[in-house]
Amino acid sequence: MRKLLPLLVLLSFAAAQAQQKTLSGYTKEAAERQLSAEEKFDSYLTPTNLDTWMKRLAGRPHHLGSAYGKQNAEYMRDLFKSWGYDAQIETYKVLFPTPKVRQLELVGPTRFTAKLTEPAFKEDATSGQVKEQLPTYNAWSADGDVTAELVFVNYGVPADYDQLERMGIDVKGKIVIAKYGGSWRGIKPKVAQEHGAIGCLIYSDPEGDGYYQGDVYPKGSFRPYQGVQRGSVQDMPIYPGDPLTPGVGATEDAKRLDRKVATNLLKIPVQPISYADAQPLLAALGGPVAPEGWRGALPITYHVGPGAAKVHLKLSFDWKMVDCHNVIAKLQGSELPDQWVVRGNHHDAWVNGANDPISGMVALMEEARAVGELVKTGWKPKRTLIYCAWDGEEPSLIGSTEWVEHHAAELQQKAVAYINSDSNGRGFLDAGGSHTLETLMDEVSRDVADPQTGISVRDRQLAYRAANAPNAKAKKDALDQRKLTLDALGSGSDYSPFFQHLAIPSLNLGYGGEDNGGEYHSIYDSYDMYVRFKDPKFAYGIALAKTAGRATLRLANAEVLPFDFKAFYKTVNGYMGEVTALLDNLRESTAVENQLIQNKTYVLASDPNIKYIPPTPKDAVPFLNFSALQNALAGLEKATTLFADLRAANTVPNTNLKQLNEILYRAEQKLMADTGLPRRTWYRHTIYAPGFYTGYGVKTLPGVREGIEQRTWQEAQEQIDIAAKALERYTKEVEAASRILMMR
Amino acid sequence: MRKLLPLLVLLSFAAAQAQQKTLSGYTKEAAERQLSAEEKFDSYLTPTNLDTWMKRLAGRPHHLGSAYGKQNAEYMRDLFKSWGYDAQIETYKVLFPTPKVRQLELVGPTRFTAKLTEPAFKEDATSGQVKEQLPTYNAWSADGDVTAELVFVNYGVPADYDQLERMGIDVKGKIVIAKYGGSWRGIKPKVAQEHGAIGCLIYSDPEGDGYYQGDVYPKGSFRPYQGVQRGSVQDMPIYPGDPLTPGVGATEDAKRLDRKVATNLLKIPVQPISYADAQPLLAALGGPVAPEGWRGALPITYHVGPGAAKVHLKLSFDWKMVDCHNVIAKLQGSELPDQWVVRGNHHDAWVNGANDPISGMVALMEEARAVGELVKTGWKPKRTLIYCAWDGEEPSLIGSTEWVEHHAAELQQKAVAYINSDSNGRGFLDAGGSHTLETLMDEVSRDVADPQTGISVRDRQLAYRAANAPNAKAKKDALDQRKLTLDALGSGSDYSPFFQHLAIPSLNLGYGGEDNGGEYHSIYDSYDMYVRFKDPKFAYGIALAKTAGRATLRLANAEVLPFDFKAFYKTVNGYMGEVTALLDNLRESTAVENQLIQNKTYVLASDPNIKYIPPTPKDAVPFLNFSALQNALAGLEKATTLFADLRAANTVPNTNLKQLNEILYRAEQKLMADTGLPRRTWYRHTIYAPGFYTGYGVKTLPGVREGIEQRTWQEAQEQIDIAAKALERYTKEVEAASRILMMR
Repeated sequence: MRKLLPLLVLLSFAAAQAQQKTLSGYTKEAAERQLSAEEKFDSYLTPTNLDTWMKRLAGRPHHLGSAYGKQNAEYMRDLFKSWGYDAQIETYKVLFPTPKVRQLELVGPTRFTAKLTEPAFKEDATSGQVKEQLPTYNAWSADGDVTAELVFVNYGVPADYDQLERMGIDVKGKIVIAKYGGSWRGIKPKVAQEHGAIGCLIYSDPEGDGYYQGDVYPKGSFRPYQGVQRGSVQDMPIYPGDPLTPGVGATEDAKRLDRKVATNLLKIPVQPISYADAQPLLAALGGPVAPEGWRGALPITYHVGPGAAKVHLKLSFDWKMVDCHNVIAKLQGSELPDQWVVRGNHHDAWVNGANDPISGMVALMEEARAVGELVKTGWKPKRTLIYCAWDGEEPSLIGSTEWVEHHAAELQQKAVAYINSDSNGRGFLDAGGSHTLETLMDEVSRDVADPQTGISVRDRQLAYRAANAPNAKAKKDALDQRKLTLDALGSGSDYSPFFQHLAIPSLNLGYGGEDNGGEYHSIYDSYDMYVRFKDPKFAYGIALAKTAGRATLRLANAEVLPFDFKAFYKTVNGYMGEVTALLDNLRESTAVENQLIQNKTYVLASDPNIKYIPPTPKDAVPFLNFSALQNALAGLEKATTLFADLRAANTVPNTNLKQLNEILYRAEQKLMADTGLPRRTWYRHTIYAPGFYTGYGVKTLPGVREGIEQRTWQEAQEQIDIAAKALERYTKEVEAASRILMMR
Repeated sequence: MRKLLPLLVLLSFAAAQAQQKTLSGYTKEAAERQLSAEEKFDSYLTPTNLDTWMKRLAGRPHHLGSAYGKQNAEYMRDLFKSWGYDAQIETYKVLFPTPKVRQLELVGPTRFTAKLTEPAFKEDATSGQVKEQLPTYNAWSADGDVTAELVFVNYGVPADYDQLERMGIDVKGKIVIAKYGGSWRGIKPKVAQEHGAIGCLIYSDPEGDGYYQGDVYPKGSFRPYQGVQRGSVQDMPIYPGDPLTPGVGATEDAKRLDRKVATNLLKIPVQPISYADAQPLLAALGGPVAPEGWRGALPITYHVGPGAAKVHLKLSFDWKMVDCHNVIAKLQGSELPDQWVVRGNHHDAWVNGANDPISGMVALMEEARAVGELVKTGWKPKRTLIYCAWDGEEPSLIGSTEWVEHHAAELQQKAVAYINSDSNGRGFLDAGGSHTLETLMDEVSRDVADPQTGISVRDRQLAYRAANAPNAKAKKDALDQRKLTLDALGSGSDYSPFFQHLAIPSLNLGYGGEDNGGEYHSIYDSYDMYVRFKDPKFAYGIALAKTAGRATLRLANAEVLPFDFKAFYKTVNGYMGEVTALLDNLRESTAVENQLIQNKTYVLASDPNIKYIPPTPKDAVPFLNFSALQNALAGLEKATTLFADLRAANTVPNTNLKQLNEILYRAEQKLMADTGLPRRTWYRHTIYAPGFYTGYGVKTLPGVREGIEQRTWQEAQEQIDIAAKALERYTKEVEAASRILMMR
């Protein structure tokens, strides 16, 4: 008998692993049923479908308002229908500017006319579809015809203007040239405009995604000399979507603003350019040599200007109304049809968009198809599933925003969660979202195998984090971390309206990190590029379908929704630590800086031959009263601990189950502040927001954090109290949920 | 009366400041005399002399063995004589290879022949003196004719080879190309050879000192496309000087080694090249893309190789014996002629060398001339002054090393200190040396005004350090620091034989930081370049004369030599903290790394499409017994505190003054270990040495530190005990000095 034991142990290991798998929100029996349904679901997933659909959807340019985009929507609608969904196209009327005139010249000291075009390559079949391609431009640039001296402003973020001030350089009346990176692109012209610039160029330095990073397309995957990053420069941190209909759906008969008063539109012209076009402009700059951190990988001495280089920029746009076609495919829930799990990806692209967004779109489609197959076997989702293909994401999350604004009241009642994806590629799981969903995603990522290594995508991500931690201490901490953690979400994809406008618990999922390239928002984001450099066999497309599919199906069929409030508490408590440290560090650094300024230390340390304007001392940083937040967090800790203890058994209450679930999925909505964030009322989540000066980059506890960063102390104090009240409302929901559990 | 007071206070401020000035080692009265002599000394200093002499000395190429170098030596000797010195030329016979054949070609996949020449510019009068210029080469390269695949090895330091190993790349039988920077140049071929490479190219990446840093010569001061950095690649961390006569002076009849057995000579050919010559070679490389930190500023994708690019390197040299002419100018001490203060700068250059070394040389000359003037007024140095102009520094500190080795016995008896300078330019005081001299240099730097700001050079340096400290905490600490601190000395100039071979207290002084350029060791280091970009009016040349002059004269005339043993103790105690932290951190990081390796974390975190060889686990880091050092330092603290207390009054003992001073200046020699450092017996100072794998970069407590870094635990333990014994011997000297003071 003894000799058999090791073999027995081995044989039963896989089975035991499977048996031991718990699913939050599921009883043991329900979990077994769910896991077996997932096994079937996986078996339906077929990579060649992704290949076929990508070839079709990315076959021609399909931006918002394009004929091919509409055809794509109809194509997808028909597919969803064929898979058993109630699918339809919901169309909004939205503003979308496209270029009429684009002209950029160096007019002194020498002359040069920028090409502003991307050449076709014979290695790339779709790169020559010139007639249908949107030209290189930044959507929402103002019309303009300006001639002025040029100033190089590095990334064009506020810190760069501080540095310009130290150099005695003012951009008032100048045209600035900023490089991509360091912030979301829309921040660059916004900050330039705030500083009085009259025009803005944004170029792709080869250091960012060009030859510095790797061989350029078509030899390698990185941005070629004439490659340009298109993109929106709407002031999305104010509000996204159609600028004429903030807060309401852009239906045919919606009330519309005059474009002139839309607060998220720029007043200055902005044009993106390639590094081939940028080099002659930058090489012509005079003025001081750029600070070391500003220099890129062009073979020139980077100067800041102004002087010598003078440019003429002329842009005008066709400010037309276009149709924005969302595909909405529903699968009615068998038990709880009024509880919706919403899953989406956008379908519009800047040009062909094989990677952005089709790689994510085709994974979503295959996921939906496999669910349809599952239904054919008799399996049913308890809750309603809604698969969405958004239009107009690229210009400014338009399709999703208008749909969310249009259906806001219903979503606030019914939406359990929104699960987003966008571009997808080879590598590591990138998962962000509401921290109430962290445990769900930990279990999902535990159960999906990485296509390349065979270990779970969770363990591969944890390995990545440990291997890349910056020092021994951080590596040690990372080794001890055995659970997946979710990143906080800023903006940049269609979760924003769900998450930050309505506070619907959201996730954003994708794979990447081993598929780097420089095709982003260029004509080279093509099928040919994708299958050479991104996810050649669509293995990660399948992994995304498995991951997002599991998240969707587990939310759809959980008896008690797997919301982990304690994980949320822990995370927010961490943010609280961050903002208090931020204030303390700011106090210390302000005191030291002021002393250095008063001692003339910076002046004495600077080269008298180089212009240097010392900063002026800043007001001392006060102590703020954090007690409201501290008390709110203490209350939240207590409530979430009780709830976690009550949920530990994963049992199902006999009564009030529907009510319990409603409390669970609506709790996050209590984190909304009616007033929204300062100067941007559309953003109402008190815990997560895109940064006012970072764009895509997240700010957690945004009102408090940005109040401190911007040194608006009174506002920071008010926001502490607003965030505390939000957490108190949320705590009450958690307590209500616990009361139901205690009634069992 | 009251009204007059503020004016009175103002008027007397300057005088009061002067009166309050204390000079360590001087009674109040002596200090007043000394300060008044220094005032006179300052008044003699004339910038136009520096200009005239630089024009003359840098007028033609004057490398070791050149006709013009000999003429310069004679010219200086005659000047010293005219200023009242007993000056003569001391000549040694030394080995000095110069190129016969230099050939470098890319032979595949395409063909390219490197130019290996620097073009003359019409803006630079001496750049066309082709016949007398040494060609671009690395002195002490081996002869060789090799053809092999090329591998890019970043800086070519040991950590880079670790990274190559991770990529599965072996340089055995290959030719490597390394960029300048990251270590002293001689380390690059040494480490390449250790790894089996058969040839080495070293190129100046434009990121280092080319267009990335600023406009290139002659428009700006940075290295032009064809500019090349010549330089020695002797294995100077083994021993410097003539490789045939280690440890003894290279006199006519010295016993010489066969060149084949000299342990500091390479076996592989090495050639420095410009970035214009490097670009086609680097662009032809295949293999993986270079890690981000390896990439430079050329407009190419940096690959590592090997494969594709194959190069042919053919070098042969004329291994001839040449005359090495040191100029030695003595001014006999009036009271203590057998106590010598030695002051030196080299006079040989790679080509014209206006900056390196003539900028320092002419400051030394003006200093010596002003001392001569002072003597004419009746002032006399108590101790003997010896001004030296060294030859052959560039190939390997030859002139100074041979002289020191030749006169070692006498120097050990008589040398109070050695004060070195080398290149000099505009900016901040850069002062390094024995920490016993820290207080002396604090007082000197307090008393020299910065030419640009008028504050003391000490305060300007402190301002620089505070302004450039990396964070608020470090800035705060820097603001609290009101005393000048000396950097520890590694190598790279003529102090090495004095300091590290004989442990004679040494200083290395210079100004710079606002005179950056890319002329280093090229034909563009010219008078024309210097007066445009370095120190146009020789104001910092004068500041150097004032600084080094004060250090020299204060040492010459101090009643009790101003050695601050307590400053030395504090500094070494800091090093002790560093080496224990180094061991602890290494232990922690080794444990974590081993765990990551054993968990396969690195493999799982790496892209399966890119070759990755995980490291092998390292032996766990043991605890070492530091008690001997700790006890020695405790003893030293006690002894130096007592000595400092006894010296606080700055009084002069009645008896044994000569003996006291001898103890003071010879104490540092007790820090020598007879056995020298492991594998390099020439280096005998137990506290300071150039790093075995950094070259110029210093290693403090070198035996202990390198033992830990190289994981030779037993050796590290032995070195702890050797350093402890050295400190104990030193402590005895401090105690002996205190005993004399107590006898007063």
